[in-house]
Amino acid sequence: MSASLLEQLIEAFRVLPGVGQKTAQRMAYHVLERERDGGRRLAEALGAAVERIGHCARCRDFSETALCATCASAARDTHSLCVVESPADRLAIEQATGYRGLYFVLQGRLSPLDGIGPRELGLDSLAARLAEGEVRELIIATNPTVEGEATAHYLAQLARQHGVRPSRLAHGVPLGGELEYVDRGTLSHAFGSRSEMP
Amino acid sequence: MSASLLEQLIEAFRVLPGVGQKTAQRMAYHVLERERDGGRRLAEALGAAVERIGHCARCRDFSETALCATCASAARDTHSLCVVESPADRLAIEQATGYRGLYFVLQGRLSPLDGIGPRELGLDSLAARLAEGEVRELIIATNPTVEGEATAHYLAQLARQHGVRPSRLAHGVPLGGELEYVDRGTLSHAFGSRSEMP
Ligand SMILES: [Zn+2]
Ligand SMILES: [Zn+2]
Repeated sequence: MSASLLEQLIEAFRVLPGVGQKTAQRMAYHVLERERDGGRRLAEALGAAVERIGHCARCRDFSETALCATCASAARDTHSLCVVESPADRLAIEQATGYRGLYFVLQGRLSPLDGIGPRELGLDSLAARLAEGEVRELIIATNPTVEGEATAHYLAQLARQHGVRPSRLAHGVPLGGELEYVDRGTLSHAFGSRSEMP
Repeated sequence: MSASLLEQLIEAFRVLPGVGQKTAQRMAYHVLERERDGGRRLAEALGAAVERIGHCARCRDFSETALCATCASAARDTHSLCVVESPADRLAIEQATGYRGLYFVLQGRLSPLDGIGPRELGLDSLAARLAEGEVRELIIATNPTVEGEATAHYLAQLARQHGVRPSRLAHGVPLGGELEYVDRGTLSHAFGSRSEMP
């Protein structure tokens, strides 16, 4: 006997982070009992998102269009480029700080053991961009983890090779923490008092 | 400017129980970064479920068909009918016990202040069923909360009016608890040592 629609739905919910069998059951029953309209909206939004959200050709952030709204904006400061590991980190900085420059989203961090090198992070296109001469400061906002620090050092070298000043967020971001989960105040302070990399 | 697909997706995830803004963001990014196929499957399963899962005409449980698989089965004992508040409670009993009888799902509990009376719980059709004479024992498995107990007493009266023996799950289910969250062993024990209602 093939799985019922309900069983398929419960199984499908488990794709979400932190959702096990029990939580998946609760989600399925909750939607069916009380939120059919919301469930329909979620199905449509999710279907559209996975089909139509790709990556910005310039900054690698999520985007529905070839160029994301930030990269396409004439109002951003093109002399500052902030490098982050993930779209969530980019969003956290955008929401917490008054930063008006541009971003570059690595979609990961250097991790040779996992086969993630400079090419997987798009660092060839980042190098080409630094070579254009428009960027003056490369704000390196990778996470303060071992791999994030290694990535930061690599990026700082890359910046210097192109005569661009590298800077790093100030201490204040807890060691071993993830930017995404840092409270706004701390993140805003750390961003504001970033220091040039030695 | 209208909301982007990403913003719509984050907002849509908030329909799920216990999911706030931050968790919704994490879910959206997780699916887009690492689980596009899983996201596609979830969108399809959810869309199909909200459109095609209705209620069984006989027991009121969720069902894709007019009669659910349990009610349609020739292998179940038609002399026992177990009344539960929700589909999740029905599932918990089915998974934890060796019960082979049938079910009736109230989809709620008596709550006059919220306008939920016997009619909203389908008790007219339950009464008609008890009048058929096939059911000998009505196992009342409402939750041990104030409203669940009030519902149980109402159901016990209804059973006696039709010459049907009402029984209640044994103590062992923690007071104030929800069946859905009781561990299998406790639930199985409580089910096995249910007592006739005084
Ligand atoms: Zn962009
Ligand atoms: Zn049924």
